[in-house]
Amino acid sequence: MIKGVLLDIAGVLEQDGAAVPGSLEAVAQIKARGYPLRLITNTSRRCRAVLCEDLRRLGYVVKESDVFTAPMAIRRRLEQQQLEPLLLIDPALTADFAGLTGSRGVAVVLCDAADGFTYAALNRAFQALLEGAELLAVGDNRYYRANAQFMLDAGPFVRALEYAAGCKAEILGKPAAGFFCAAAADMGCQPEQTLMVGDDVNADVLGALEAGLQACLVRTGKYRPGDEQQLPDSPAMVHDDLAQLAENLP
Amino acid sequence: MIKGVLLDIAGVLEQDGAAVPGSLEAVAQIKARGYPLRLITNTSRRCRAVLCEDLRRLGYVVKESDVFTAPMAIRRRLEQQQLEPLLLIDPALTADFAGLTGSRGVAVVLCDAADGFTYAALNRAFQALLEGAELLAVGDNRYYRANAQFMLDAGPFVRALEYAAGCKAEILGKPAAGFFCAAAADMGCQPEQTLMVGDDVNADVLGALEAGLQACLVRTGKYRPGDEQQLPDSPAMVHDDLAQLAENLP
Repeated sequence: MIKGVLLDIAGVLEQDGAAVPGSLEAVAQIKARGYPLRLITNTSRRCRAVLCEDLRRLGYVVKESDVFTAPMAIRRRLEQQQLEPLLLIDPALTADFAGLTGSRGVAVVLCDAADGFTYAALNRAFQALLEGAELLAVGDNRYYRANAQFMLDAGPFVRALEYAAGCKAEILGKPAAGFFCAAAADMGCQPEQTLMVGDDVNADVLGALEAGLQACLVRTGKYRPGDEQQLPDSPAMVHDDLAQLAENLP
Repeated sequence: MIKGVLLDIAGVLEQDGAAVPGSLEAVAQIKARGYPLRLITNTSRRCRAVLCEDLRRLGYVVKESDVFTAPMAIRRRLEQQQLEPLLLIDPALTADFAGLTGSRGVAVVLCDAADGFTYAALNRAFQALLEGAELLAVGDNRYYRANAQFMLDAGPFVRALEYAAGCKAEILGKPAAGFFCAAAADMGCQPEQTLMVGDDVNADVLGALEAGLQACLVRTGKYRPGDEQQLPDSPAMVHDDLAQLAENLP
């Protein structure tokens, strides 16, 4: 029934700069039982190699290919369709898109570029879209908070380019179905064979269910009492933490 | 019936860097008959003083207060509501917004800032909008063409800020009703007492009619045969050029 497991990093594996109690052992246990797994996140400010290093520092025994991010979902799409990326990204992400030289056209890749969102860069992206490039984005969030200030996220720039070029972006980060399906495919699983474990009832759990995955809410991270009331009625879908879930995996 | 006249600059007064034949005399004639007039344009790359100089170079006898632009419509709004502008504009427009120190709050003023659309500047505008500032824009065009390249116009940045802050911009350039009404008010006229003369059947003529003005199409500039078929049926609403219109003014 369950052939592979997706684990959200923030709030399930990591919280406040430390491993969530019991999660180190739980990940080892899930691996030992032979489940392929992917540790997933939407982040568009750290490349996969750095994320992997950060997880190792917390004590997780993981290799780079265990980590799957929204930018990696975009990379897979570029590989499949043999598209060359025109990048609007944070320089820290450059490694995630290295060595891509598609021969079948161009895709605009829009992550959280921040100061990289210059008029010149946006114009280059716009001109590529006019010539038929696809627009692939890590998300369409409106803003985020940093140092007590609200800052523009990728979403407003997605809307700007969509409006200018008369096109529609494809979002390949959580909670988009495309992200969950790409993460499942990355470990060779069909969506319905894959269990997504997250602390965010909307983006993680309901998002995964909508994409055709199985899903489980854990009561760590950003979980708030009552969140489970948003879920379809099934006791198997909520666990106190990843440790409890690992014990109860079939 | 007609108490004031608005004349579109591009295509009615000026074409290919020269005065449209007969228009120099027509403007003098309309002035001599005592009609207040405003020479209008949407441009957001030249301030009013420079536009006035350019018209004088073509031979027009005009003073600065005869010229009314979309940025001037925004300036009037700022003055009326005593708002201080947070400017996202081309540096060439700075003079149009000099000396404004409103005491009742802030308005974000978005013109065609081009390279001025930096992430830092857009963030400042976004933060002001979150604190309740109004968003006033010269237009929401998608793109324009320059040196054989398509370039992002103000519209995509309007959409970006609207999406980020969950607000709706007010457009104060042609063909928005607010622009025509502000131009009429600038010469002390009610909209229904004002005749708008333009070569663009949509932006000039139908836009003005929709705003409650009278309007006339001239067959110069970007006029193309058949354009008059888009107008309500009335022979008085089309003239060959500004010279013919001036002769037929009541």
